[in-house]
Amino acid sequence: MKLFVTGAATTKFGELWNASPRGLARHAVFEALKDAETLPSSVEALFVGNMLSGMLGGQEHLGAFFAEELGLTVPAFKVEGACASGGLALHNAVNSLLSGQYTTVAVLGIEKMTDHKPEDVATALMGAGSEEERSAGATFPGLYAILARVHMREFGTTEEDLAAVAVKNHLHASLNPNAQFHNTLTVEQVMKSSRIADPLKLLDCSPISDGAAAVILSIHKTQRGVELSASAVATDTLGLAQRKDLTQLAATRDASQKAYAIAGVTEADIDVAEVHDCFTIAEVLAMEDLGFFPKGKAAAAIAQGKTTVGNGKHVVVNPSGGLKGCGHPVGATGVKQIVELVDQLRGIAGKRQVSGARVGLAHNVGGSGATAVIHILKK
Amino acid sequence: MKLFVTGAATTKFGELWNASPRGLARHAVFEALKDAETLPSSVEALFVGNMLSGMLGGQEHLGAFFAEELGLTVPAFKVEGACASGGLALHNAVNSLLSGQYTTVAVLGIEKMTDHKPEDVATALMGAGSEEERSAGATFPGLYAILARVHMREFGTTEEDLAAVAVKNHLHASLNPNAQFHNTLTVEQVMKSSRIADPLKLLDCSPISDGAAAVILSIHKTQRGVELSASAVATDTLGLAQRKDLTQLAATRDASQKAYAIAGVTEADIDVAEVHDCFTIAEVLAMEDLGFFPKGKAAAAIAQGKTTVGNGKHVVVNPSGGLKGCGHPVGATGVKQIVELVDQLRGIAGKRQVSGARVGLAHNVGGSGATAVIHILKK
Repeated sequence: MKLFVTGAATTKFGELWNASPRGLARHAVFEALKDAETLPSSVEALFVGNMLSGMLGGQEHLGAFFAEELGLTVPAFKVEGACASGGLALHNAVNSLLSGQYTTVAVLGIEKMTDHKPEDVATALMGAGSEEERSAGATFPGLYAILARVHMREFGTTEEDLAAVAVKNHLHASLNPNAQFHNTLTVEQVMKSSRIADPLKLLDCSPISDGAAAVILSIHKTQRGVELSASAVATDTLGLAQRKDLTQLAATRDASQKAYAIAGVTEADIDVAEVHDCFTIAEVLAMEDLGFFPKGKAAAAIAQGKTTVGNGKHVVVNPSGGLKGCGHPVGATGVKQIVELVDQLRGIAGKRQVSGARVGLAHNVGGSGATAVIHILKK
Repeated sequence: MKLFVTGAATTKFGELWNASPRGLARHAVFEALKDAETLPSSVEALFVGNMLSGMLGGQEHLGAFFAEELGLTVPAFKVEGACASGGLALHNAVNSLLSGQYTTVAVLGIEKMTDHKPEDVATALMGAGSEEERSAGATFPGLYAILARVHMREFGTTEEDLAAVAVKNHLHASLNPNAQFHNTLTVEQVMKSSRIADPLKLLDCSPISDGAAAVILSIHKTQRGVELSASAVATDTLGLAQRKDLTQLAATRDASQKAYAIAGVTEADIDVAEVHDCFTIAEVLAMEDLGFFPKGKAAAAIAQGKTTVGNGKHVVVNPSGGLKGCGHPVGATGVKQIVELVDQLRGIAGKRQVSGARVGLAHNVGGSGATAVIHILKK
């Protein structure tokens, strides 16, 4: 059975002080329905990806919460897997269609982070990690800094190479009206920004963001629908200490191999990818673990512009601006990646359009690599 | 495609001061695997139902968390929908099998509530309800008290009728070695217990509990496997104020009608049911909304013993002891209901065995009726 993304929309991402979770959800879902040229009554189930609403806002039961807000009296589910919540919600939505239970469903990814104190947000985010790491005082920048250190030691990756990821993604974000940041960066600016968790600096880190994204998935083909060809998930240990190898995220490798097989493509077929660059090192790892570059070769390639919009021949990575430039409202990220790919494959991505894009890949990660979700879309 | 519950197990439910969430999960899942006579390596995905771990314990990302603890490097998901989290996790697991993505999966429902102060638990539980109700100071006993008042006014239901639900469920629990309570009750004891939210008294309310339950679901039939014939979900408004009718939970009615149609049965075919008696009035509503009794007639029937083990002819309800007698570790409840039905349909439920049970129904509710999940199992 073939599945199609028939509608896709995001809100603007950013520090949306005047927006409520309800308003963000309405905007994303109703715009996605409009984009799908269908009515709310065609939606048979709602899947919500969110991580922090319970811990920070005391509101759980978000399936029913948003179903009521959207006027949808349909089965509704919240799926949570830290920063991969959006991707996991999509995976369960895909299964629900393939199972024959539903024929058209909506997937909403949403997070409202700026209503809370940054230190509370940082504490809550550590809910994605292992108890040992949390009680030892580790933070996510700290965990990714360890991964960066190992990569630098093993492959000679430099801080400037990492900085180049942020430079590229801000360039892309400057071309995306919905992105959180529209300022471009230089390697020097990244290098001079405050050190957060050495060797990662402030401008190596994705921001705290508000935003929502929604897609309408259906078994019915529409004229503007984009085929969703594969949805695959893999899991690794929650903490870094239990892993055999810190030069890769094994879950990314495993999920992408599964997804390539399901979609009948190889990494060479991917024209455009939205990957989980929560920190600059994460994009370097993703490039290698997805098979786009040999291990140890991605950082230099990114710095040479090989994955920048307009490169002409290689895969373009994070044309939306990625988590770094477009913003990272945790539960929304995995769904926003799909929205960007749909725009790219439809050829309506404006100044950040990847010319001739026919196959797209989305890569959403939870924690420091415990969960990886891959989706592949085809024109 | 037919699906089978090939293994099922619960921990003891109760105030398990010496147990950890990790230990409870290991016990439930490994016992379920043993019951299924299969190895952990046969499990291809893990679905976790849990509500409170993030809000009360700061630990989210429970799919990966428990996958690591159980030594399962498979796709893992947390599904949340308040007290229906277990049922919703099961529904998504069912879809994942019907979709063809996986062939054998594990579903774990778990909650560890007694590690936290009761007032914190009560506050966190209100995360299941509407913002308006929460900020107005409503509690779940208060919301169900409103439903009880309406039922008493419309149908002449008495406080003694409600008490009879608790009496029956404690009787059943006294026959269940894994139940939280083994003491039997009299109507007089219930009537004399402290008033929590008039007309509901302490002994009308399900307790705060710890516990875990797990089932192994497979597309492969086994000798002891029990067929899972239907999985259906329905949604209503989060808050009571938005509902047209407070004499019923419309989500229960809608989900059960869907499930009967899928399974090709009617309410008259159900021999044994595990229903969501978070408060005694909830079981009365469930009896009517599931179609077992006409509206307004269930309370007297329960009081007459028509749904008690050994009644000989009518459906037996909550042989496990239900939420009231067996305990209500929120995320575990929807999965424990399945474990009880599997035991009943296999004829191994000991002193609480419903003789000749061939068709069972599980009814799991989130909030004050915003989510209802129905599963039907056949011998």
